[in-house]
Amino acid sequence: MDKIIYVDNAATTELDSEIFEKMLPYMTQNYGNPSSIHKMGRIAKEAVENARIKVAKAINCQPSEIYFTGGGSEADTWAIFGLAQARKSKGKHIITLAIEHHAVLHSVEALAKIGFEVTYLKVDNKGLIDIEELKKAIRQDTILITIIYANNEIGTIQPIEQIGKIAKEKGIIFHTDAVQAIGNIEVDVKKQNIDMLSLAAHKFYGPKGVGALYIKKGIAIQNLIYGGGQEKKKRAGTENVASIVGLGFAIEKAVSNLEKNSIFVKELRDKLINGVLSAIPFTRLNGDLEKRLPGNANFSLEYIEGEAILLMLDLKGICASSGSACTSGSLDPSHVLLAIGLSHDVAHGSLRITLGHNNTIQEIDYILNELPLIAHKLRKMSPLWEKVENKGE
Amino acid sequence: MDKIIYVDNAATTELDSEIFEKMLPYMTQNYGNPSSIHKMGRIAKEAVENARIKVAKAINCQPSEIYFTGGGSEADTWAIFGLAQARKSKGKHIITLAIEHHAVLHSVEALAKIGFEVTYLKVDNKGLIDIEELKKAIRQDTILITIIYANNEIGTIQPIEQIGKIAKEKGIIFHTDAVQAIGNIEVDVKKQNIDMLSLAAHKFYGPKGVGALYIKKGIAIQNLIYGGGQEKKKRAGTENVASIVGLGFAIEKAVSNLEKNSIFVKELRDKLINGVLSAIPFTRLNGDLEKRLPGNANFSLEYIEGEAILLMLDLKGICASSGSACTSGSLDPSHVLLAIGLSHDVAHGSLRITLGHNNTIQEIDYILNELPLIAHKLRKMSPLWEKVENKGE
Repeated sequence: MDKIIYVDNAATTELDSEIFEKMLPYMTQNYGNPSSIHKMGRIAKEAVENARIKVAKAINCQPSEIYFTGGGSEADTWAIFGLAQARKSKGKHIITLAIEHHAVLHSVEALAKIGFEVTYLKVDNKGLIDIEELKKAIRQDTILITIIYANNEIGTIQPIEQIGKIAKEKGIIFHTDAVQAIGNIEVDVKKQNIDMLSLAAHKFYGPKGVGALYIKKGIAIQNLIYGGGQEKKKRAGTENVASIVGLGFAIEKAVSNLEKNSIFVKELRDKLINGVLSAIPFTRLNGDLEKRLPGNANFSLEYIEGEAILLMLDLKGICASSGSACTSGSLDPSHVLLAIGLSHDVAHGSLRITLGHNNTIQEIDYILNELPLIAHKLRKMSPLWEKVENKGE
Repeated sequence: MDKIIYVDNAATTELDSEIFEKMLPYMTQNYGNPSSIHKMGRIAKEAVENARIKVAKAINCQPSEIYFTGGGSEADTWAIFGLAQARKSKGKHIITLAIEHHAVLHSVEALAKIGFEVTYLKVDNKGLIDIEELKKAIRQDTILITIIYANNEIGTIQPIEQIGKIAKEKGIIFHTDAVQAIGNIEVDVKKQNIDMLSLAAHKFYGPKGVGALYIKKGIAIQNLIYGGGQEKKKRAGTENVASIVGLGFAIEKAVSNLEKNSIFVKELRDKLINGVLSAIPFTRLNGDLEKRLPGNANFSLEYIEGEAILLMLDLKGICASSGSACTSGSLDPSHVLLAIGLSHDVAHGSLRITLGHNNTIQEIDYILNELPLIAHKLRKMSPLWEKVENKGE
C-alpha cells in the first residue's frame, strides 16, 4: 500500500488547499512589508488586519486584542514570561497543571529559577483538574493561572469556564494554551473569562510557523521579541504576511465547519476506540471518554514498546505518534501519562492516534485490521507476554 | 503607469519564484512535523536539515551551529538576551553602536533596565565605527559586543573582521546583526571571528517569517522560546518547514550569484546616485560611498518632508522608503540620520531607495525622470524654499 494514512493531526495537520490558495498572492505578487507606507506595503497591511479580524471573531474578542506570533510556543512563552515580569511587584506565585504542554511547563520552570513559585496541580486518572484543589492553591500573591484547554496527548478538555470564573473572582490573570482546542471545540474568551490565549495555525489546517496570542484589553505584559513597531509595538519583526493570511482563513473555516467536522471525526474516533479495545487485550484508553477532543485516541498497550508499534505502523503506511511530537525521540515516558497514574512500563507502550476531517472510515478499517496483527506480533517477541499467555492457559 | 517600481528591497524583497517552487512541496504533500518519527515526519526533518547545511555553508560554519528562528528580530533578541543572561555572573557590560537596528537597540535598552550597562559607540558622519573608541570602551566586565554588519538605512558596512579580532583578543563574545548584509556582501564567520550572527530570509528573496541565529560551538546562551526539544532543545516550536526550506535555497542562490548581482546592482545604484545629486540641488547622499551596501541609496533633500516625497512617488508607482520600514509611521526622525550628524529638519527630508537585482536600468531612468519633478513641486509649496530661491536671484 503506497497511500499514507495520516493520523497524527495533533502533531500537525495538512495545509488545506483552499487556505493555501488564499496565501498564494502574498507569496507571489503582494510581497510588500506591511510597515511600508507605499502601495505594496498597504496591500500587505490590509491583509494582516483582515486576518486579525477573522481570528478575533473566531474566539469572540476585539481585533485589537490579537497579536500575531511565530507559533504556539512563542505565544505561550510570551504570555507567561511577559505577564510574570509585568506583575512581579504584585506577587510571584503561578498556578499551572501537571499535564501542560512543555511550552508552558518549561516556561514556568525557567521562572521558578529566577524567584517565582509554581504550584503544579495534579489531575485525576482521566487527566482532569480538581477545581477544589485549584481554589485551595490560590494565594494572595498568585498572579497567573495557566491551564491547558485540551491536552495534546490524551485529549482531555478542562472546565475552562469554571476556571475562568474563579480566576476572575480572585482578580488573577487566566491564560490558556488552546493550541489543540481551537478549530476542534468551541472557544469563547468572553463567556469563559479567558484573559490570554495561545493558538497555532498548523493545528487547524493552516500553515506552520504562525500563531497568535490573545491579550485582553487592559492587561499589560512585557515584550518577548524586540525591534520595530509591529503589532502595536508589542511583538517586533516583519509580519509573516502570507502565513498570517493563512491563519485568518484557516480559523474562519475551522470555526464555521466545527460542528459538522466534530460529529464526523468523533464517529471515526469512537469506531477506532471500540475496535481497538475489543480486538486487542490488555489495552486501555487514556483520558476521559466524554471530555475529550473529537479526534483524540490514546491507548496503552501493555507488554509492547510504543516506538516499536510506531515503526511497524509506519511500514504499513500509518503515521501515528507515541506521545506528543514535540518530545518524540526522547526516552522519558510521557509526563502526562505518568500524571494520570500510569506506571513507567505501561506509559512506554502508549500510542496516540489523532484524527481529522481528512480521514475516512476506510482508513479506520485499515488501522483496525493492521494494529491487532502488529500488537500480536510484537507481544509474541516479548518474554513478559509469554508469561501472561502461559498463565491464561 | 500601472507597473510598480519596487525600490524598497531593504524592507523586504520579492520571494524568488524558483525559491517558491522549492517550498511548494512542503506546503502541499510533505506536511509532516519534523519531530514525528514516521515517514511524513522524516521527510520534513530531512528538509530542515538540508536547509541547515545550506545556511552553514553560506556563512562558513558547521550546520550544528545554525538555529532557525521566526525572523531577524527574534534572532537579535535571543542572541542578546540569551548571552547576557548566560554570562551575567562574568559581567554586565555590553557595547553596541548608536546606529543599530531597533531589534538590537530595544533589546539592550531592556537589559539596561534590569541592571546591565550599555555603551553606545558613536559613528562618524558616514556612519562608521571608530575602532579606537571601541577599544577604549572595553572593560573587564564587558561580556558582549553587538555591532550591525551593514546599516539598514544608510547602507554603511562596518569593519567586521577588525571588530571580531579585537573581541577575540579580549575574550568577549561578538554578535552581529547581518540581516542586511547576508546575500548582498560576503560574510565568513570564521575569517571574521564572529561568535553569533542574525539573518532573515526575506531580505534575500526568501520568505518572510523565518531567520536563523548562528551560535559558535561552545557558546551557551539562555533560551528565548520554551517548549519542545526542537533545534537541539534551544528553540522550541514546530519547525516552519516550508519557510526553512526557502531560507536554505534562498541563501544558497544569493551567495552563488553574489558577485554578479552585486556588480549589476551597484551599477544601478551609482547611476541613481549620480543622477539624483546632479539633478536636484540641496541634496546630499547619506552614508559612505565605498563601504556601502550595493543596493543602498539614502538621500536628504532639504526643504522637503520625506513622507511627502514618498506619497508623490507612490502616485507614480514607485515604492520607496523614508527610513527603515520598521519605524515608518513614526514621526521621530531616524536615529541613524541624527547619529551621523544631520539636523532634525534635514533628517526629516530623507529618502531611502534600495535596489535589487530585479530592478532595471529603465526603472532607474524613470525614477530619475520623476524624482526631480516631485522635488521641485514640493519645494514650490515650501515657504522656506521661497526664501532660498529669492536669495539665489
